[in-house]
Amino acid sequence: MWVVPESEIAGLMTPEAAFDAVEAVFAAMARGDARNFPVVREAIGHEDALYGFKGGFDGAGMTLGLKAGGYWPNNAGHGLINHQSTVFLFDPDTGRVSAAVGGNLLTALRTAAASAVSSKYLAPQGAKVLGMIGAGHQSAFQMRAAVRFGNFEKVIGWNPHPDMLTRLADTAAELGLPFEAVDLPTLGEQADVIVSITSAFEPLLLDGHVKGPTHIAAMGTDTKGKQELDPALVARARLFTDEVAQSLSIGEFQHAAAQKLISESDVIPLGQVITGQHEGRGNAEITIFDGTGVGLQDLAVARAVVELAKEQGKATKVEI
Amino acid sequence: MWVVPESEIAGLMTPEAAFDAVEAVFAAMARGDARNFPVVREAIGHEDALYGFKGGFDGAGMTLGLKAGGYWPNNAGHGLINHQSTVFLFDPDTGRVSAAVGGNLLTALRTAAASAVSSKYLAPQGAKVLGMIGAGHQSAFQMRAAVRFGNFEKVIGWNPHPDMLTRLADTAAELGLPFEAVDLPTLGEQADVIVSITSAFEPLLLDGHVKGPTHIAAMGTDTKGKQELDPALVARARLFTDEVAQSLSIGEFQHAAAQKLISESDVIPLGQVITGQHEGRGNAEITIFDGTGVGLQDLAVARAVVELAKEQGKATKVEI
Repeated sequence: MWVVPESEIAGLMTPEAAFDAVEAVFAAMARGDARNFPVVREAIGHEDALYGFKGGFDGAGMTLGLKAGGYWPNNAGHGLINHQSTVFLFDPDTGRVSAAVGGNLLTALRTAAASAVSSKYLAPQGAKVLGMIGAGHQSAFQMRAAVRFGNFEKVIGWNPHPDMLTRLADTAAELGLPFEAVDLPTLGEQADVIVSITSAFEPLLLDGHVKGPTHIAAMGTDTKGKQELDPALVARARLFTDEVAQSLSIGEFQHAAAQKLISESDVIPLGQVITGQHEGRGNAEITIFDGTGVGLQDLAVARAVVELAKEQGKATKVEI
Repeated sequence: MWVVPESEIAGLMTPEAAFDAVEAVFAAMARGDARNFPVVREAIGHEDALYGFKGGFDGAGMTLGLKAGGYWPNNAGHGLINHQSTVFLFDPDTGRVSAAVGGNLLTALRTAAASAVSSKYLAPQGAKVLGMIGAGHQSAFQMRAAVRFGNFEKVIGWNPHPDMLTRLADTAAELGLPFEAVDLPTLGEQADVIVSITSAFEPLLLDGHVKGPTHIAAMGTDTKGKQELDPALVARARLFTDEVAQSLSIGEFQHAAAQKLISESDVIPLGQVITGQHEGRGNAEITIFDGTGVGLQDLAVARAVVELAKEQGKATKVEI
C-alpha cells in the first residue's frame, strides 16, 4: 500500500492535475464507464459528527475505492479543521488495498476543479467578471481554479458576514486581479460567472438579481435543507450537475424539484457536455452547475496524486 | 496511522481475543451503544468482483470505521485468496484515520468467534457432539473456535463434496478429537451443536433431520438466494441473529420470512442474551443463530489486534 500523507499533497497536486482528473471522470460517468456507489452518511452520536463513505469505480481510469471521513464541528479544540477525510484506493484486479491518501486538501481541490470544469464548458463567451458568493475556507480554492482556467479581469464578491471579505480581496490580489465588494443585485447584474460556496439554508441569489448571459456554479449545497439559489432562478436556467439523483435529493436543485418547478429530465450531467453528447449552453441565458460532490472525483484526484508522489519519491510503501 | 499487515495478524490475534471482542460488541449493539451503518455492496462490472463497505460505530468501545473489500472470484490466478479486505479505524473524537489493518484472517476469526459466542449462550447443556456442515476454508476456523469454547468429545461432519472432508478430519485431529463422516440425517440426530458454513443455494439440513435439543449456528448465508436450512426447521426453532434486519433480508432467515413462516418479532438479537435481556434457549428444543456478519465485528477484532500489535511492537506508524 502506498501512503501519501496530507502534508505532501500541497507540494504534489496542481490545479491542472485536479482539473484534468475531474474532467476525465465526469466524462467517464457520462459514457457509463464510471459509477458512484450509494453514499453512506451517518450522525454517529458523538461530538456532533457526521461520518460516512463515498465510493465508486471508474472502469476507464481503472480506479476503485472510497473516501471516508466527515465533519467534526468541534475540531478546532484539537487544532484540526472540521472536515477530515482519507481516500483509499484498491486494485480493481484483486481487491487489495493499493493506496491511502490524506483527503483534506484533495477535497478542496476537486471541489474547486468541478466548478472550473463547469465554467470551461458553460461560461458565456468572453466572460470577464467573476462573482464570488461566500468567503469561507473553500472560497479561495474556488477563485484560484476559476481564474486559472478562465480569462477574468475582475472579481466581485459578497458574503453574509462582510468582515470575511478580506479573504476574497487577498486571494484576488494574489491572482493579480482587482476585487470589489458588492451587494447581491450588483453581483448578479455584473458577473459573467458566479461561484456560490456558502453553508446557507435560504436563497441568497434571487431570480431578479441575475442578468444573463451568466453561468452559475452552485457549490455549497450538499445536504437536505441547504440552499443558495432562488428556485425561480433555477427554474428559468439550463441545468447541469455532477450526479443527477444527488442534485435533486441533497443538492441545490432539491428545492426547485420539491416545488415541481423542475423534473429529473431537466438536469443534464456535465459529463455529457464534455463528451459532446449535449450542446451545453446553446442559446440559454443562464446556466447553472449544481456541484454536489461525488466519490469518483475524490478517487480521480487521489489516483493522480499517488502517481505524482510515486514519480517524485514522496509516497511511502507500507506492507499491509 | 498505525498499520498492521495481514502477515502479522496470525501471530497477534488469538481466538480468545476475537471471542471477547465479538461478545462485547454484540452486547453493545443490544444495549444500543453500537450501531452498524448501511452496507454498500456492488458488482463493479470487472473481474466478476463484488466490492463494498461495512461500517459502524461502537460508542462503548469507542471504535469507528469500516471494512472495505470484497470477493474477487479469479484471484487464484494472482496467487491470492478470493476474499480480500482491509479494516480502517478512525478517531471518533476528530475523524482522523487511526489504523489500517489487513482484514482477511480477521474476517475468518470474527466469523468463527460469532458462532462460538452463540454456542456459549445457546448450546444445550452437556453438549458433547459437534456437527460440521461444510468443509471449505472457513470450516477449520469454525471448528477450532467451537471446540476451544465448548466441551466437545467428538466431531461429525458432512460436505457436498466428500473428498473435501479431509479438512474436517485433519482439523479435528489437530484438536485431539475423533472425527466421523456422516450423512445429514445422522448429523442432525447426533449433533448437539451444528455449525453450517457452506455457499449453498438450497436447503441442506432438513426439518426431519434434526432431533433436539440442538443449537445450530448457520454461518454460510450472507446474500440473497443463499440457503442452508429448511424453512420448516427455522419455523420451529427459537431464532437469534447478529443483526435482525440483515438476517431477514440477506441472511438464513430470508427464506422463512419470505414464506411468512416467521416475522421480525421472532428473531432475537444475540446480544440481548449476552446482556441478560433475553433468557436465550429457555425451554426451546432447537435454537438457531443466523450469523450474517456485521461491520462492528470487524471493527472490534481490528481494534483488538491494533492494541496487541502496539503492545508487541508489531504496528508500524505512518504519517498520513
